[in-house]
Amino acid sequence: MAKLNIGIFGATGEVGKEIIDVLHKLDFPVKELFLYAGKSAGKTIETPYGDIVVQKADTADYSELDIALWAIGGEWSLKNWERAKDSKCYVIDNSSAFRYDDEIPLIVPEINGDLLKENPSRLISNPNCTTSIAAIPLHILNQIAGIEKIIFTTYQSASGAGNGGRQELIEQSKNYIKNERVENNMFQHPLPFNVIPHIDKFRDNGYTKEEMKTDWESRKILDLDDSVKITSGCVRVPVERSHAEDIVVETKNPVDLNEYRGALRKEPMLKLCDNPENNEYPMPINTSGNYVVEVGRIRKPEVFANGIRMFVCGDQLLRGAALNAVLIAKKLYDLGKFD
Amino acid sequence: MAKLNIGIFGATGEVGKEIIDVLHKLDFPVKELFLYAGKSAGKTIETPYGDIVVQKADTADYSELDIALWAIGGEWSLKNWERAKDSKCYVIDNSSAFRYDDEIPLIVPEINGDLLKENPSRLISNPNCTTSIAAIPLHILNQIAGIEKIIFTTYQSASGAGNGGRQELIEQSKNYIKNERVENNMFQHPLPFNVIPHIDKFRDNGYTKEEMKTDWESRKILDLDDSVKITSGCVRVPVERSHAEDIVVETKNPVDLNEYRGALRKEPMLKLCDNPENNEYPMPINTSGNYVVEVGRIRKPEVFANGIRMFVCGDQLLRGAALNAVLIAKKLYDLGKFD
Repeated sequence: MAKLNIGIFGATGEVGKEIIDVLHKLDFPVKELFLYAGKSAGKTIETPYGDIVVQKADTADYSELDIALWAIGGEWSLKNWERAKDSKCYVIDNSSAFRYDDEIPLIVPEINGDLLKENPSRLISNPNCTTSIAAIPLHILNQIAGIEKIIFTTYQSASGAGNGGRQELIEQSKNYIKNERVENNMFQHPLPFNVIPHIDKFRDNGYTKEEMKTDWESRKILDLDDSVKITSGCVRVPVERSHAEDIVVETKNPVDLNEYRGALRKEPMLKLCDNPENNEYPMPINTSGNYVVEVGRIRKPEVFANGIRMFVCGDQLLRGAALNAVLIAKKLYDLGKFD
Repeated sequence: MAKLNIGIFGATGEVGKEIIDVLHKLDFPVKELFLYAGKSAGKTIETPYGDIVVQKADTADYSELDIALWAIGGEWSLKNWERAKDSKCYVIDNSSAFRYDDEIPLIVPEINGDLLKENPSRLISNPNCTTSIAAIPLHILNQIAGIEKIIFTTYQSASGAGNGGRQELIEQSKNYIKNERVENNMFQHPLPFNVIPHIDKFRDNGYTKEEMKTDWESRKILDLDDSVKITSGCVRVPVERSHAEDIVVETKNPVDLNEYRGALRKEPMLKLCDNPENNEYPMPINTSGNYVVEVGRIRKPEVFANGIRMFVCGDQLLRGAALNAVLIAKKLYDLGKFD
């Protein structure tokens, strides 16, 4: 089968770097890798595909690419689709710019990757990290018992705000421990040894945009109808990498916990991590750098006659971004879009 | 009015030390302060009431005390009630040993302190920290709209596991930052830059005892009947002090958010901290060392026709332990129990 020309936009950022690594580790059929960035254009980057000079993202020639993986930002994506849209290149966009557009597929490949068979869109959105980490366990639950309500409560790591967030957490933790002044630029307040119930902008309904994304995007990916109700509370915690989520779900039908555990076990990209007697449950220190999402603390929520409560943890840069984007690219490839 | 002989048991522990401080700051009518401990008996402690020699807790003479504040531990409390029960001394017990006994009042003074008027028990239980931090905001909501369901999801600090927990967090955070081996003795796993969904022992239903305490104790303090359903997810986070809680509540009747905010504002021991536009919301770095519990992020939860979602944060050593215990003592005093 053909090999592809792949372009990574925002190649020097956290997500971009992970995309290069995932492409290589998954042995993606790369013919040539092209790297693009804004300010970092001109730099030479060492990659498993050789040393590559980073080109200017704004002037990329999409006609030489089969797939462009965009990880620069929403405003940039909005401005640049005009330049990309008439080429034959598929664009997989990590930003939220097009996620809520009915014409644009929002994909977690294991769930709704088959939408790409028929859908003619050459622009595909990659979901928000918190949403994609929870999506597969929720999809399996939806198939077994039908989701009626979801209550998300999150523990989101500093690197969710980019590498600057991670660095600020570590540097300022040193100051905190030395009893020196703790500064904050990346977060609204100092994050070391604190939790901050504020991620992204506040909206009129009192929820942040991050909180609303888990509603809008879970709904679209899982194909939930309007009768399903979702509420989310997103909180930044002093963790370097990986997001954890407490999820309470009401289902239409009763859930047999062991049937659900069995179904989770069959999914290769999940790891059932649910042995409280051995102190085994999902935790950020175990998921960081890993492709699988951990699911555990599975129990009945007293508040709903039918339903489940669980704790889910995954690497927000991998399943939450780079890995999912590359799996979308792989799905396009496997569907024969480049034959 | 009379001054009282007060005994603090576990006087050299975290809660004991805070009790001494709160007694003094609230200008409690102390005649003489007696300190008791296990291993630390014999030590001399500097207090605002002078230097005091710590006596052996096991051999305390309750006949010389008006109030004994117990903060040693559940097993110790169970063993020692026999020795205390025939004296005229009131015992306020911080442990969970007697909290679920129907005969023993479980008190947050602002909510159900008046139970002490009629109740003849000289043993009074002080609630679990997570429960007491949330109790007053929930009580006010219950009065306005009637609680039907509560979903707790917590962010609990290291010092909830005692001063050893706090020390381990700080010491091991240094190792983490230096890329050295991170040890754990106080927690089941390393806590620095991690979150651990495990506090206290697991029970057969998949919930921890800490999680069940918020159910059992909220129910008893708020006088909720069996039709009210509660579920809780308790998680340890790398914070030194103060517990934060995300709370989703379904109510019988609609809640006007501003009416609720107004009612919270009237309660002196709460601080409404709900100005997202100015980045103001409850956070551990702001509540540690403070008597007031902060309440904010007040919004409608989409999952319930009537209800509220909020974020609550309070010092688990103060409202969650020492302050509440002293306020119980003050209530007994104000009710004329020692006249």
